[in-house]
Amino acid sequence: MALKPVIPKGTRDFSPVEMAGRNYIFETIRQVFKLYGYTPIETPAMENLSTLLGKYGEEGDRLIFKILNSGDFLANADRNNFNDSSRLSIDICEKGLRYDLTVPFARYVVQNQHEIVFPFKRYQIQPVWRADKPQKGRYREFYQCDVDVIGSDSLLNEVELIQVIDEVFSLLGMKTVTKVNNRKILSGMAELIDRSDKITDITIAIDKLEKIGFLKVTEELKSKGLGDKEIEKLKPILNLSGTNKEKLSSLREVFKDSEIGLKGVAEMEEIFGYLDELGLNSQTELDLTLARGLNYYTGVIIEVKALDFSIGSVCGGGRYDDLTGVFGLKGVSGVGISFGADRIFDVLHSLTLFPEEILTPSEILFVNFGKKEAIYSLRIMNGLKKNGIACEIYPDPVKMKKQLAYASQKKIKWVAIAGEEEVLNEAVTLKNMLTGTQETIKKDKLVEKMNPGN
Amino acid sequence: MALKPVIPKGTRDFSPVEMAGRNYIFETIRQVFKLYGYTPIETPAMENLSTLLGKYGEEGDRLIFKILNSGDFLANADRNNFNDSSRLSIDICEKGLRYDLTVPFARYVVQNQHEIVFPFKRYQIQPVWRADKPQKGRYREFYQCDVDVIGSDSLLNEVELIQVIDEVFSLLGMKTVTKVNNRKILSGMAELIDRSDKITDITIAIDKLEKIGFLKVTEELKSKGLGDKEIEKLKPILNLSGTNKEKLSSLREVFKDSEIGLKGVAEMEEIFGYLDELGLNSQTELDLTLARGLNYYTGVIIEVKALDFSIGSVCGGGRYDDLTGVFGLKGVSGVGISFGADRIFDVLHSLTLFPEEILTPSEILFVNFGKKEAIYSLRIMNGLKKNGIACEIYPDPVKMKKQLAYASQKKIKWVAIAGEEEVLNEAVTLKNMLTGTQETIKKDKLVEKMNPGN
Repeated sequence: MALKPVIPKGTRDFSPVEMAGRNYIFETIRQVFKLYGYTPIETPAMENLSTLLGKYGEEGDRLIFKILNSGDFLANADRNNFNDSSRLSIDICEKGLRYDLTVPFARYVVQNQHEIVFPFKRYQIQPVWRADKPQKGRYREFYQCDVDVIGSDSLLNEVELIQVIDEVFSLLGMKTVTKVNNRKILSGMAELIDRSDKITDITIAIDKLEKIGFLKVTEELKSKGLGDKEIEKLKPILNLSGTNKEKLSSLREVFKDSEIGLKGVAEMEEIFGYLDELGLNSQTELDLTLARGLNYYTGVIIEVKALDFSIGSVCGGGRYDDLTGVFGLKGVSGVGISFGADRIFDVLHSLTLFPEEILTPSEILFVNFGKKEAIYSLRIMNGLKKNGIACEIYPDPVKMKKQLAYASQKKIKWVAIAGEEEVLNEAVTLKNMLTGTQETIKKDKLVEKMNPGN
Repeated sequence: MALKPVIPKGTRDFSPVEMAGRNYIFETIRQVFKLYGYTPIETPAMENLSTLLGKYGEEGDRLIFKILNSGDFLANADRNNFNDSSRLSIDICEKGLRYDLTVPFARYVVQNQHEIVFPFKRYQIQPVWRADKPQKGRYREFYQCDVDVIGSDSLLNEVELIQVIDEVFSLLGMKTVTKVNNRKILSGMAELIDRSDKITDITIAIDKLEKIGFLKVTEELKSKGLGDKEIEKLKPILNLSGTNKEKLSSLREVFKDSEIGLKGVAEMEEIFGYLDELGLNSQTELDLTLARGLNYYTGVIIEVKALDFSIGSVCGGGRYDDLTGVFGLKGVSGVGISFGADRIFDVLHSLTLFPEEILTPSEILFVNFGKKEAIYSLRIMNGLKKNGIACEIYPDPVKMKKQLAYASQKKIKWVAIAGEEEVLNEAVTLKNMLTGTQETIKKDKLVEKMNPGN
């Protein structure tokens, strides 16, 4: 009996049509990264478990795919652990699949610190793996597109990344709003109610504001030990409105006794100052409810929302002051963002924003009439390819109808017919598959015809 | 104590400089694939072990990285297997990392047979993983670049793939020879000595001819049960010489009683016939010792050797008649080749064949003198980027010496200096980092200066 051809749940194949869309997204992002002077790195899919574990919280640790040691992995296993999957897994697995690109990047920076030119502007586009329960839009293998600057405190980096975001979505034709906040402003809020010990609880709760609403967040804050009075003090801040400038100026007032709060306000004022001078296609909005669960952010926090389509954030990130500390390199500050390729794909697909031309593999299909005509066609094709025109010949001399159907299914726009008569006349008959019209031209004119701008 | 930042043995990080070289290779290959009408697919890194096991021989099975089931993996393990790593591994692992791109491709074709337009011309550039003993030039994670046509028996496909090889190495500036053989010719040889049962042993032994020499191959053939007389009969064939045409014409004689041998000769004659008409940059050579260990090839076998550098094959492949049979789709013939990116990298690196421009991330670095000048520079940079000129500003207003050192280390050719005076005069001073010369020009002239061909 034949094997059933299936892939593990939560994983995906990408067909040529899907790849065309994905590559268009990756290429657009890559092109912008390059324009801004970022260079790529890649790290291995497998990292040592010691590198990965303990970096993503308890839940994260459970979601890391572990790789069984090769050979006789039981030889070094402690038999006392044979009833405990969790403990045994550490005995029999040394490696795991990377869970994100951030921890491998931190590991890379520390490992290669003496070769790296700082400030280090790097991007990285690679898959990551998580043993999450698969569901709509959540996969066990998916790509992340990260771009970071590490080794510079300058807020120009934040400005630049917001420009990068603006440029990427502008090129993709996606309407977005870039929401920004600052961890120091959140710290100021905690300081305001004199509960700096609760900052993580507060940011995690605030992060859920949009999802579960103010009432439930209030309940959560209470359950974390905040009093009614403290929550009351936070309320006006969460409900601040007006322009970015107005919000910041109100905050200056609120934070008059909080050094860190004022620092956060000053940073945001500087960033908005630059952005106003430069002009962007999309809006950037100070959003004090923005916290993003990750508690390693120390400064600016960024999140991008699509405007014409309801979906989670399509890009996000922020500044972190001590990413590499755990690997022994202290005091290196960085700022970075990550584009969500899968969600961007869903938006572009749903709003039919993919350009049509990305779907065409070849521009011309040559009909195959047999050996003599094929050689004639292949020679013409050599000339086309030298001019960068993608073309192919149907490999078998089957019925023309079948060959035309192939062109049509593959959305190839032109079919070139070079039969006995064309060979005699050094010509080729060109059929437009969209309109059905056809004309016979000299074979020397074909390149010009296909590439009038040349 | 800080964690030591190391990666698993046999895996690699790729720095920006290495990535530039690798991307240049992948882009060149991709560009040629596209010109010939091939479209990309991608498959997941993880496949079910049932898909992978039993496809690569016993040794191959051992080299597959297995992924530990998530959660309480011991719950479904047979306790009788707790002394046998090999058997227990099947209880506790359902998935493995792909070992090559061929088996996942076969699985993909069968799983998606009703959506695929045949003949299906696909390429696939993705990493594969093997738990091999790491050594120089052998890694546990490496990329394969596969290109295949499936669903067509036409030898035009073989011709096209040989053209693809010629074009790729020609664009990369690498001198190569493409060695070709045909499994049917090898079968003819087995038939000649009436030992068709030994064809696998013979091809495996012949595959080692170059590595271990005729004498040792003879010993191996003897150990596999071939007699002196049979080996003697094979000898003249292995030592055939002359042009491709001469070799084929001698073979016609030798194979006069072997139908399959003659079929192989006819196929090679047809392929060489096309190639002669089309003209290639590199040589294609019939090499009867070429067998390539894989016993799923049924027709043409291809292997490419670098001429100016001693290294294994840089590309290889062949025709297979029943790749998808194991997944339940019979009678689909395909032909494909795989480029060895790592070896190609080594050749280009060793012979310094990488173009210099691939190493430059930005074309211009703007010196940072503080906020006012930075805004002036950022505005100019917006204009440069709109014209596709990659540029960056040093993020911090540190000493100019440090900023110039950054440009120099990153091999950025131009440094733009826009200080107080330049801002006043709407100018920018441009320093050539290679020659040290500098000139001050109006800021409007910068795009033209950087992009004279525009």
